[in-house]
Amino acid sequence: MNVFRASENPIITPADVTPSRPDFETIGVFNAGVARYNDTVILLLRVAERPLAPDERTCVVPMYDAGANRLVTREFDLSDPRFDFSDPRSVQGPSAVYLTSLSYLRIARSRDGVHFEIDDAPALFPDNIYEAYGIEDPRISVIGGRYYVNYSAVSSLGVATALASTEDFVTFQRHGIILPPDNKDVAIFPEKIQGRYYALHRPSTSALGRPEIWLAESPDLLCWGHHRRVIGLRPDSWESARIGGGAVPFRIDQGWVEIYHGADTENRYCLGAVLLDADEPWKVIARSRQPILEPQAPYECEGFFGDVVFSCGALYEEKTVKIYYGVADTSMAYAEIAIDELLNSLTEA
Amino acid sequence: MNVFRASENPIITPADVTPSRPDFETIGVFNAGVARYNDTVILLLRVAERPLAPDERTCVVPMYDAGANRLVTREFDLSDPRFDFSDPRSVQGPSAVYLTSLSYLRIARSRDGVHFEIDDAPALFPDNIYEAYGIEDPRISVIGGRYYVNYSAVSSLGVATALASTEDFVTFQRHGIILPPDNKDVAIFPEKIQGRYYALHRPSTSALGRPEIWLAESPDLLCWGHHRRVIGLRPDSWESARIGGGAVPFRIDQGWVEIYHGADTENRYCLGAVLLDADEPWKVIARSRQPILEPQAPYECEGFFGDVVFSCGALYEEKTVKIYYGVADTSMAYAEIAIDELLNSLTEA
Repeated sequence: MNVFRASENPIITPADVTPSRPDFETIGVFNAGVARYNDTVILLLRVAERPLAPDERTCVVPMYDAGANRLVTREFDLSDPRFDFSDPRSVQGPSAVYLTSLSYLRIARSRDGVHFEIDDAPALFPDNIYEAYGIEDPRISVIGGRYYVNYSAVSSLGVATALASTEDFVTFQRHGIILPPDNKDVAIFPEKIQGRYYALHRPSTSALGRPEIWLAESPDLLCWGHHRRVIGLRPDSWESARIGGGAVPFRIDQGWVEIYHGADTENRYCLGAVLLDADEPWKVIARSRQPILEPQAPYECEGFFGDVVFSCGALYEEKTVKIYYGVADTSMAYAEIAIDELLNSLTEA
Repeated sequence: MNVFRASENPIITPADVTPSRPDFETIGVFNAGVARYNDTVILLLRVAERPLAPDERTCVVPMYDAGANRLVTREFDLSDPRFDFSDPRSVQGPSAVYLTSLSYLRIARSRDGVHFEIDDAPALFPDNIYEAYGIEDPRISVIGGRYYVNYSAVSSLGVATALASTEDFVTFQRHGIILPPDNKDVAIFPEKIQGRYYALHRPSTSALGRPEIWLAESPDLLCWGHHRRVIGLRPDSWESARIGGGAVPFRIDQGWVEIYHGADTENRYCLGAVLLDADEPWKVIARSRQPILEPQAPYECEGFFGDVVFSCGALYEEKTVKIYYGVADTSMAYAEIAIDELLNSLTEA
């Protein structure tokens, strides 16, 4: 299967994104949702920022204080034995976990789909207790002319999925938490199927279960039920440890195509594809045996968290799957795959 | 506050419940849902059974095989170093966790609320992949003359919450998974509030969050959204480690009364009470500072998993809260508390 990575890759890097305040630095711009809006391709970028540390012995973590309605920071001495700093993404304390960066959403616009202009101001910034640690990994579903954005709302209460919507990418309306923690990797189908909305989601269980892909139904996009596990892990494979929904599914004659991610026990994240039944999307018709895209380019292998390709959005246009994907939790990249080649690579479920 | 425990306590014990098959033994009958049905009090008992072990070196775990539509068992050598048998409730393997017993629901009926006759056959038994490890901790909400039963559906896919309903406690209809894993301790309010159904629930998060009580809304009892965290843990208290909804809330003039459970880091489970606003049940008006019921009697302190009192149902009749509660994950007990005394024990939130 031919995967055409853009020669401009990575198409957006942290150096392209001025931080939202001078005492912070941009460490990541990745895992963007995507939509076509009039003549432009819009990326809803996940921008990760962190406070500049005063010295090498200090870790400063940011968080949103909903009561005070502002960002606050907390300093940790890296030699403090009560805290574990081994994961660059978090600080593990005796009674709480903190994130070393805070993410929010920012818009980038492009005419050609590869060269983007980035808005100066955030589009969606944390504004309640469920978003105190940030807003992550948006997906955009276009439903009835309105753009619905679901994202991970992260806080000390867990990782929940929230919904917002917009008609113009200027004004956004928030719709609250649609799936309780921990649940991420939600991808809402862009149209009703037999009168019901559907979404892929990925509950994280604490003891018995494993991180796999479930399907839910809804009458109104806000309340979700009829949960079913639809796509499981595959032992001893690139998707042996966790899988989750990626891009918003798109419809072709044969059914629904979902670009999803899988990771192995080494935390190497790849992309796969699955074909779901057109009318009964809980039925898997065919699925990747090998990844359709895996970390190979230097910008995919090296970065804040290396060996990661992770998509939150793709456009299906002119028989081509145009995949926007985060690389190494650091930057954005772009690749194209012909739909026929992608379908031919799938094997029966 | 005066708590009147029944002199007959425990009112139902494993010795009262013949196992569903001769090669199994009943090890627990606890955490029953309760409803008044015509002139009788109905308990929907959680019955836990396990296969008889052939010898002292073997642990046999039961599970429901949905493909074959029957119970199967698996034997473990207790000296096998790949498995951890230290928790009597589970077997922890390198790639999976098994439960040492399988629970299902069985009906008990009483005229006086204390002396019960137990049905010979199960009322609800595992019948799909989400219930392979059992059905646990039912709550019964009477809505529009129909009895809605939510319960924990336990399997290797996690602990999800399922819904069933009945009009006669003879025929039950299943409504699928209403909250994805891990989520338990769900208590559905018995009537609509301002046109919406509400339920308390307890998502279990894997990393950032803690086991606390959330509230959800629904248009139809099947799909749930607008999730909010409403009751949090209290550090350094009897409810410092986890809390969860218990009995179905009941309405008094001042609002909704919820009997919930809390546990400390020693896994000692107590009952508390909370008063929620009548029209805006996400607002906590008052809450127990001390437990309203804690493990003190021998049958509460000793058993399969000691130091546990845990309620899935209470009746509010004649100004009295009639609490049915599981003790030590082994038996059922009953206690009464006058509503005025209970309310006086609560302090402002």
